[in-house]
Amino acid sequence: MDDFHYQQGQLYCEKVNLEQLAAAVGTPVYVYSRHTLETHYDRIAEAFAALNPLICYSIKSCGNIHLCKLLAQRGAGMDVVSGGELHRARLAGVDMAKVVYAGVGKTDPEIRQALEAGIGYFNIESEAEFQNIASIARAMNVSARAALRVNPDVDPKTHAKTTTGKKETKFGVDIERAHRFFERYGRESHLRLCGIHLHIGSPIFTVEPYVQAIEKVLALIAQLRQEGIAVGVLDLGGGFGADYQSEQSPSAADYAAQIVPLLQPFHAAGGQIILEPGRTIAANAGMLLSRVLYLKTGGQKKFIIVDTGMHHLVRPTMYDAFHFIWPTNVAPAHEPKQRKATMDMPGLETCDVVGPICETGDFLARDRALPPVARGDLLAIFTAGAYGMVMASNYNAMPRPPEVLVDGKQITLLRRRETYDDLVAPEIQAVTGGAVRNQG
Amino acid sequence: MDDFHYQQGQLYCEKVNLEQLAAAVGTPVYVYSRHTLETHYDRIAEAFAALNPLICYSIKSCGNIHLCKLLAQRGAGMDVVSGGELHRARLAGVDMAKVVYAGVGKTDPEIRQALEAGIGYFNIESEAEFQNIASIARAMNVSARAALRVNPDVDPKTHAKTTTGKKETKFGVDIERAHRFFERYGRESHLRLCGIHLHIGSPIFTVEPYVQAIEKVLALIAQLRQEGIAVGVLDLGGGFGADYQSEQSPSAADYAAQIVPLLQPFHAAGGQIILEPGRTIAANAGMLLSRVLYLKTGGQKKFIIVDTGMHHLVRPTMYDAFHFIWPTNVAPAHEPKQRKATMDMPGLETCDVVGPICETGDFLARDRALPPVARGDLLAIFTAGAYGMVMASNYNAMPRPPEVLVDGKQITLLRRRETYDDLVAPEIQAVTGGAVRNQG
Repeated sequence: MDDFHYQQGQLYCEKVNLEQLAAAVGTPVYVYSRHTLETHYDRIAEAFAALNPLICYSIKSCGNIHLCKLLAQRGAGMDVVSGGELHRARLAGVDMAKVVYAGVGKTDPEIRQALEAGIGYFNIESEAEFQNIASIARAMNVSARAALRVNPDVDPKTHAKTTTGKKETKFGVDIERAHRFFERYGRESHLRLCGIHLHIGSPIFTVEPYVQAIEKVLALIAQLRQEGIAVGVLDLGGGFGADYQSEQSPSAADYAAQIVPLLQPFHAAGGQIILEPGRTIAANAGMLLSRVLYLKTGGQKKFIIVDTGMHHLVRPTMYDAFHFIWPTNVAPAHEPKQRKATMDMPGLETCDVVGPICETGDFLARDRALPPVARGDLLAIFTAGAYGMVMASNYNAMPRPPEVLVDGKQITLLRRRETYDDLVAPEIQAVTGGAVRNQG
Repeated sequence: MDDFHYQQGQLYCEKVNLEQLAAAVGTPVYVYSRHTLETHYDRIAEAFAALNPLICYSIKSCGNIHLCKLLAQRGAGMDVVSGGELHRARLAGVDMAKVVYAGVGKTDPEIRQALEAGIGYFNIESEAEFQNIASIARAMNVSARAALRVNPDVDPKTHAKTTTGKKETKFGVDIERAHRFFERYGRESHLRLCGIHLHIGSPIFTVEPYVQAIEKVLALIAQLRQEGIAVGVLDLGGGFGADYQSEQSPSAADYAAQIVPLLQPFHAAGGQIILEPGRTIAANAGMLLSRVLYLKTGGQKKFIIVDTGMHHLVRPTMYDAFHFIWPTNVAPAHEPKQRKATMDMPGLETCDVVGPICETGDFLARDRALPPVARGDLLAIFTAGAYGMVMASNYNAMPRPPEVLVDGKQITLLRRRETYDDLVAPEIQAVTGGAVRNQG
């Protein structure tokens, strides 16, 4: 699952004791394991090796440039969804030909930036977008490649806010309309429509939705081939699960066991497979470490108030997401052998783990049974590597936490802690500009 | 309501045409009206003048230092909930004696910072917090004042995530326990417990919950007085509504009409009233201006894809909040005479207004009837001044928008647009630090 493990009641990331890490860098802090991150990438590469896929890491899940660089060094391409993410990919030294660019709202400057960079593929979300990118490419006299995002109308059984592959979402085109799209735009020379992109949601904890979606798309590809339209690229998107609880998610090998045989004929015929894993690589590779500020009993409820919350990790508030939380130092009887929503141990106390933000919605866990904790204790919020730091805000004028990488015994700062001055710098700098203009 | 109004089918903020503003500063952009902001403050001051209250603007609703400065110049104090907000108050030139500091997770460095600044009051959320602040004040050999936050257990009938004054929240102490709290801590010399703080949620669109809460607290104060415990300060908190739809919220005068008579005796006996308005001042003073990138028809649904979304204004996604949205340029027949969830006009089309973020939850409006819009049109997202920019994130590596102030004909940049380099600066800077430490 990952390299966060207890030894004699104390939590380590690889060989680093997290109490000592917190003493060195303060809290709250995002901690990543290099070994977990790289191993998760390698397992996908190994599991899907028979298809020789291009693995484009999904920057939106966890975009620190130093982490992206580690993956790029292993051969990863990147899945970007904005000019900002393209900037991150470039800083991470990613081969631009291995970049795929998705997202429903690509602006003209972003499109020009991507065309100039010579990225691998644009994932196309709508007719209007295809026309616009083609028109800009024509004006720039360059040529690019595109994959059409197709909604196969399968239910990934994930959260309503993260389901994307059904009908009636803002993404892609419905599969029945894909045929006409290829007929209409398949001959555009400045934006060569040569692939199909699937992305059905995230996280998806079963393989079946992928099987359903791939079967539908392979049928479409076969039909297009009969009509003389070649689809040489199939981008399966992302969405593979992560272990928010122990063994909650299929392994890379589990996904591959059912997906690889389906795609062998396409691959054997020269087809290119692209994967866009994000969460399944980054989620368990990172955690958020937080200090207990206060304990409080209000009526029947016990609250553990910590120094992080929805501003740093919004998933519990936004998606009702579960994150396993446990103290970094526990009695031997409370060493967790696995991570579950309900832990079967004596001596646990039910409480809410809440943050400092002035909102009732600012919580990390509700009605959670935990070992006894005291002011000053450290709590580890597990599986926070994906959709953690990337969604952080400065709500309540709270600086965002630093990110550190653990590699064996070594701790490296990957992003420094924000300061109060950082929060206001763009406001202070704006004043020197003064009046923008005076109308009338 | 505010100074955003249509003239001959074109939207203006005060005397500035918003199409021209967008041409000058780009989109997306938060636009604030100085006149609206100041008028909203003044109306509260006038309505409650008989109580001579200290009005502490709630920085968490909209914290730009230049906007805070405008209010401070009118005599406002500030309600802060973190060291970062205290920093903002200081930069805005606020009299520190007029600062009240709330929030359940005050850290030791933040408490020291507030004690050194000599703020007016700490709003106390728990026993453990009171003990901690008192202990730090004792160690620093300073003395400060505190108000106990009391939960009166009234239902403000707002969103579950923003209800705060009922039992079983992380905030304050239940009213039955307040008595014991004063008995136990009322004699602490370094942290003088001299007030009661109420905050029952936000937004609250009726006056009745305030009346109920104040009656309960006045009874508590009377009871305490009989036992020789003087409560000289009553902080009513915030929560007053805003006009997300026309005339949705009571006016300052409406709130005051019922609240002022209740509190006259307390005031006449020398009691100090504190108000903490935020949303009711800032919400209608600001709006988010966005450009239409693409139109898309997916199945039966029409999507308007714009260049802003949940990363800049999270309220629709997080709270199912309604924001009135309308094009800045419309035919005369489509000039809105009022702002309502359902507009009774011919020729409207039902659509979803969605952002560029790769999440189904990234929307600004769903199934909303709007006048016809085309690529390149501007949409105004109204009543976005509060809990807009302060909650913005860099999700999908999107820079945060600038903030501009309109004052008559003049446009002033209050916060510059973030750049791609801003996004990664703390990561680039971290590298120069190198390894934090090497354990073992």
